[in-house]
Amino acid sequence: MTTIGVGLIGTGYMGKCHALAWTGVKAVFGDTPDIRLASLCDATPELAAKKAAEFGFLKSTADWRALIADPEIDVVSVTTPNHLHADMAIAALEAGKHVWCEKPMAPKYADAERMTAAARRSGKAAILGYNYIQNPAIRYIRKLLDEGKIGAVNHVRIEMDEDFLADPDQPHSWRSEAAAGYGALDDFAVHPLSLISTLFGRVESVFGDMAKPYPDRPHQGGRRAVETFDIATALLRLPGGISGAIHVNRCAWGRKGRIFVQIFGGRGMIAFDQERLNEVQIYLAEGRPEDQGFRVILMGPAHRPYDRFIVAPGHQLGFNDLKVIECRALIGRILGEETVAIDFDEGLAIERAVHAIAQAYREGRWVTV
Amino acid sequence: MTTIGVGLIGTGYMGKCHALAWTGVKAVFGDTPDIRLASLCDATPELAAKKAAEFGFLKSTADWRALIADPEIDVVSVTTPNHLHADMAIAALEAGKHVWCEKPMAPKYADAERMTAAARRSGKAAILGYNYIQNPAIRYIRKLLDEGKIGAVNHVRIEMDEDFLADPDQPHSWRSEAAAGYGALDDFAVHPLSLISTLFGRVESVFGDMAKPYPDRPHQGGRRAVETFDIATALLRLPGGISGAIHVNRCAWGRKGRIFVQIFGGRGMIAFDQERLNEVQIYLAEGRPEDQGFRVILMGPAHRPYDRFIVAPGHQLGFNDLKVIECRALIGRILGEETVAIDFDEGLAIERAVHAIAQAYREGRWVTV
Amino acid sequence: MTTIGVGLIGTGYMGKCHALAWTGVKAVFGDTPDIRLASLCDATPELAAKKAAEFGFLKSTADWRALIADPEIDVVSVTTPNHLHADMAIAALEAGKHVWCEKPMAPKYADAERMTAAARRSGKAAILGYNYIQNPAIRYIRKLLDEGKIGAVNHVRIEMDEDFLADPDQPHSWRSEAAAGYGALDDFAVHPLSLISTLFGRVESVFGDMAKPYPDRPHQGGRRAVETFDIATALLRLPGGISGAIHVNRCAWGRKGRIFVQIFGGRGMIAFDQERLNEVQIYLAEGRPEDQGFRVILMGPAHRPYDRFIVAPGHQLGFNDLKVIECRALIGRILGEETVAIDFDEGLAIERAVHAIAQAYREGRWVTV
Amino acid sequence: MTTIGVGLIGTGYMGKCHALAWTGVKAVFGDTPDIRLASLCDATPELAAKKAAEFGFLKSTADWRALIADPEIDVVSVTTPNHLHADMAIAALEAGKHVWCEKPMAPKYADAERMTAAARRSGKAAILGYNYIQNPAIRYIRKLLDEGKIGAVNHVRIEMDEDFLADPDQPHSWRSEAAAGYGALDDFAVHPLSLISTLFGRVESVFGDMAKPYPDRPHQGGRRAVETFDIATALLRLPGGISGAIHVNRCAWGRKGRIFVQIFGGRGMIAFDQERLNEVQIYLAEGRPEDQGFRVILMGPAHRPYDRFIVAPGHQLGFNDLKVIECRALIGRILGEETVAIDFDEGLAIERAVHAIAQAYREGRWVTV
Repeated sequence: MTTIGVGLIGTGYMGKCHALAWTGVKAVFGDTPDIRLASLCDATPELAAKKAAEFGFLKSTADWRALIADPEIDVVSVTTPNHLHADMAIAALEAGKHVWCEKPMAPKYADAERMTAAARRSGKAAILGYNYIQNPAIRYIRKLLDEGKIGAVNHVRIEMDEDFLADPDQPHSWRSEAAAGYGALDDFAVHPLSLISTLFGRVESVFGDMAKPYPDRPHQGGRRAVETFDIATALLRLPGGISGAIHVNRCAWGRKGRIFVQIFGGRGMIAFDQERLNEVQIYLAEGRPEDQGFRVILMGPAHRPYDRFIVAPGHQLGFNDLKVIECRALIGRILGEETVAIDFDEGLAIERAVHAIAQAYREGRWVTV
Repeated sequence: MTTIGVGLIGTGYMGKCHALAWTGVKAVFGDTPDIRLASLCDATPELAAKKAAEFGFLKSTADWRALIADPEIDVVSVTTPNHLHADMAIAALEAGKHVWCEKPMAPKYADAERMTAAARRSGKAAILGYNYIQNPAIRYIRKLLDEGKIGAVNHVRIEMDEDFLADPDQPHSWRSEAAAGYGALDDFAVHPLSLISTLFGRVESVFGDMAKPYPDRPHQGGRRAVETFDIATALLRLPGGISGAIHVNRCAWGRKGRIFVQIFGGRGMIAFDQERLNEVQIYLAEGRPEDQGFRVILMGPAHRPYDRFIVAPGHQLGFNDLKVIECRALIGRILGEETVAIDFDEGLAIERAVHAIAQAYREGRWVTV
Repeated sequence: MTTIGVGLIGTGYMGKCHALAWTGVKAVFGDTPDIRLASLCDATPELAAKKAAEFGFLKSTADWRALIADPEIDVVSVTTPNHLHADMAIAALEAGKHVWCEKPMAPKYADAERMTAAARRSGKAAILGYNYIQNPAIRYIRKLLDEGKIGAVNHVRIEMDEDFLADPDQPHSWRSEAAAGYGALDDFAVHPLSLISTLFGRVESVFGDMAKPYPDRPHQGGRRAVETFDIATALLRLPGGISGAIHVNRCAWGRKGRIFVQIFGGRGMIAFDQERLNEVQIYLAEGRPEDQGFRVILMGPAHRPYDRFIVAPGHQLGFNDLKVIECRALIGRILGEETVAIDFDEGLAIERAVHAIAQAYREGRWVTV
Repeated sequence: MTTIGVGLIGTGYMGKCHALAWTGVKAVFGDTPDIRLASLCDATPELAAKKAAEFGFLKSTADWRALIADPEIDVVSVTTPNHLHADMAIAALEAGKHVWCEKPMAPKYADAERMTAAARRSGKAAILGYNYIQNPAIRYIRKLLDEGKIGAVNHVRIEMDEDFLADPDQPHSWRSEAAAGYGALDDFAVHPLSLISTLFGRVESVFGDMAKPYPDRPHQGGRRAVETFDIATALLRLPGGISGAIHVNRCAWGRKGRIFVQIFGGRGMIAFDQERLNEVQIYLAEGRPEDQGFRVILMGPAHRPYDRFIVAPGHQLGFNDLKVIECRALIGRILGEETVAIDFDEGLAIERAVHAIAQAYREGRWVTV
């Protein structure tokens, strides 16, 4: 395979992020097939044409089925609203394309199941946009865990907080409608779950709690009830007897992209905050007690694949760079390499955990995933 | 009242802490009666005499009942092991003394109830050693909340972690025996609960989880099962519709005295870490978005009663200073002032919450406190 | 101008950085002419061809004069070793190309003067690779200063520290030869000087100090004297009566890309550390004293042009993104827009300051720049 | 010696600090003679009596000569304004008392010389109140240096910044009069110099710079020229070929007690900030590069004499505790122990360095101390 033909559906936040990843991945890594930005699709021909020009795509269309049918396309990036993921991803897989679909898979679990079945049938690479796991810092943490640096892990806490819904005067929107899902649970908790999947394996059982910081929001001159939960908590049982907890909050003033991970082991502890994505903290219970402390490690070329971006340590990757690494992971899957990624199978396990947490909340009891 | 006669029972970690508080409180605050260090009691006459000399007490004894009976004593500091608190505190109250008792009240809830009943009957000041609430930083946070600076609080998370049991090779001790209590729950969680009591009021209902990071520990050449839980988690419902969570861990490598508090409000957020006890972080959603950020406020004379210790800001109080403030709060109670402190009534409410969390854990369901 | 033809000379650390910038700039900003990666030059035809394939350039060559003569090229990126900058940049300018040259201009001041003269004669855009000034954080700081948020600035300190020469056992290399220049002064201090140029204007007078942490290094089985100074300090007088200081150190163990800036004003203070390039700290002396503290502001879409990269705040740009912004600044210059950049004129002023600091060091006295 | 009789002159900021130290030192350390708070002196008999009652002193007087003559007094704490230090300290020494005098010694160098001569003649303990050096964190740093943990030190930077004069609208006061001394140089720089003395030895040669952030201040309805320099910088040559720099600023908005120390060695680096006085940062160039980072070490019982205050690590000492340690160092001197303290000899060396820096500033050249 000397060239990969790319089709992109959607040009919003994540659509641009995919476009930048496809644009840069070969220059960054050097070792990929050529990337051919074949076609781009958005809602109208005009928007699609404008974005194709900006992002450097050769063609554009407003018909996503046409894009999927395009023989020049090998892989399809699906970055549309969540409820469209299933139809597009399945159609692409059935057309023999590889698929890079944004998270979460689909608001309905049945759709996620259909997507996974289609991926299995197709034999194509099908991965989800869980880019936080692609951070060299997370790969380094996984390496430390594999090496047993902090001993056997016995406990883990992950918080994910942002403030884009924190303003109580922000008008009611689709995000607060029940049709959008549970709220913070499916919107945010999937990210901590993707980290848990990458570092520890699949969740075994869960307890859940959810809360509405604001019961209603301004709507058409009055107030309208908020139907989703902007705060959620899950207690977890993980493989190997590890206990854990996840906290997520979309109304956390001041938090902009915080994903704070604390991993407790028998010989040390690891902490990481996505708001400082180039830093890993590790405490090792070794040497003299008086010399022990949390070490703040700045990512550098020794933390692969940071080296592909910058040769100097401590100069820092950005959020968009993580997507380039994810893109390289997808290409690896296409080429038959072993790479770290959340594929549709693993993504479905994450969805199962999400629904189990919601059930645990409703029923006020532990639920086996 | 021009002089307060002090009796101290116990000279360990907390005994010394009380002694230092009694020694310094008048020099720090200036506005108290004279403090007369009347008598000190420890297990043997020799130890008691030695410590009395060190701490500056006039007399010493190995008979705590004699100390309590001493007419020169107005207030008794009880700093002995937890299972001795009830008898000593009750005897002191019944002898007409004020009592300053270390936390937690007693391993058995019935004993805590007896203590509270004795305090009510006596009409004397009876407070518990929850010194973290005495930090000027916590008082400042309470003031900010009272002023509505961060709007209505809707969520709170508190973590308390230390590592004094983190080493899996540390031999089995009384701390790992069932007789010692639940483990981290009664040893640690009472501190976050004292903060919640001070800032938000009494817990309404709870869910609980507990875990043993190490199932057994070295013992007499073999291994012995750990009967307590060094990790505990509680989900909370607080007054005013506030949801919350507490995490405690006595096996958290690297954490030495971390009590991390996150308070989420409709107009801002407050964060505080006891490991940097002189700093409060606050984010306010006001002004231009581009200028918003977490403000790290160093405590200073404007944060009472820091000013009684140091006239310059940012120079920092220490842990022992918090006990001096607690001592002043006790003296205030004796003098009939309104002061912030956890008295036996409030302490009993904390104990109730602890036992409810344990019950919730056993039964896997929410429990009303 | 609908298309910009790009020629790149050099494919090392900075060459790749330029390539990534040219590759991504249109997709990021959307509002530029099309970018045509016309030709790439490196030392051998094989290396050039390999890198052209990786970076997506249409042609390659080992003859930089041929690249410069190529009529399909509008702008030349010069990323070769410093002593080659002058000839290449001057030839490109004389061939009517715009030039984007890495810093510093040239080891010899006379060469820098020739470059500047050539740029003036050509009327072409000619800027230097001082990418740290392109950080949205720095632009935000400049805006704060322009608005007078911290009042009149009276003092500034900048430190730049890395550790790539910190190991005393690292063998002697060209970096330790006198021919390479002064050492940390011309290698590092130019970056703080570029920040000073951007924020405060040109340095008026200087005092200088330099030091060799290691007098010699391993060389061919023995030791060879280090001829450069890996540590340098400059005291500064800036426009408007501002005093200041710069510290640079290439042997600072643990510092990986630290550029710590402290700006003292009559109404507040600003601090910034390049090792956390997405954070600005600001203290404003306003409101109640008890509420004042350093605010840690995470960069977001409100801090232009962060918004062109990511729509969510706090998600973080990386080092390579700064080069994309610099590339856009260059394009702006080509298009006749006003943009923030260090052009050859301003770069020459920085070189003058560097040589004045060295002279001040030699003569042990203040020197007017 | 079974009892130490204490006389205290002055009850302001530092007077109270001494009083608290004398009150607590025996209870904290346990191993000292009994402390007898014999007599206290302040400006009026009323104030003296009031403060004696608060601080627990047995007698009071408004006549400092009477206090010094008091046979019940073994040691005199001198905490009056700087220009009174010399007369009081010398009189006390000549009366056969030990002296604990606040820093700096005296505004005039000749007075400092007289004090030192008196101390030598007396053979009594005579130390200065440089309490920052008493921090267990600083003692730990000294130990690390002695052990060679970071290799040979080659460079050091110390900044000391506060903001009590930062407001340009603050009225003119004695602090801005030439009679008060140089300004930040003698008020602040002596602290960094005391740290340098403790960690590296005496300064060999200096360069100096000083600045006035505000040329004048409000005064009697008009403006009056500021005669002192609120900002000062010194470049240093230290024993062993170490280069260094000191920056001090009394107009640094937001800094409340910052003393930031950076020590650069051949095998690592140490950093410390007095605003987080219980933390030491150390970077060691050992182990795998990918695992290296700055370690934040929280002080604990392993860092003597923290253990005398608190048995649990990370619980934190406060500023006043440092004075207790200093008091213990003084008692050690009295008892003939070797202790870390700045005595009058060493204090005079610090004063010499201060005046040399001022001379270097005036003459624009390096000056040998």
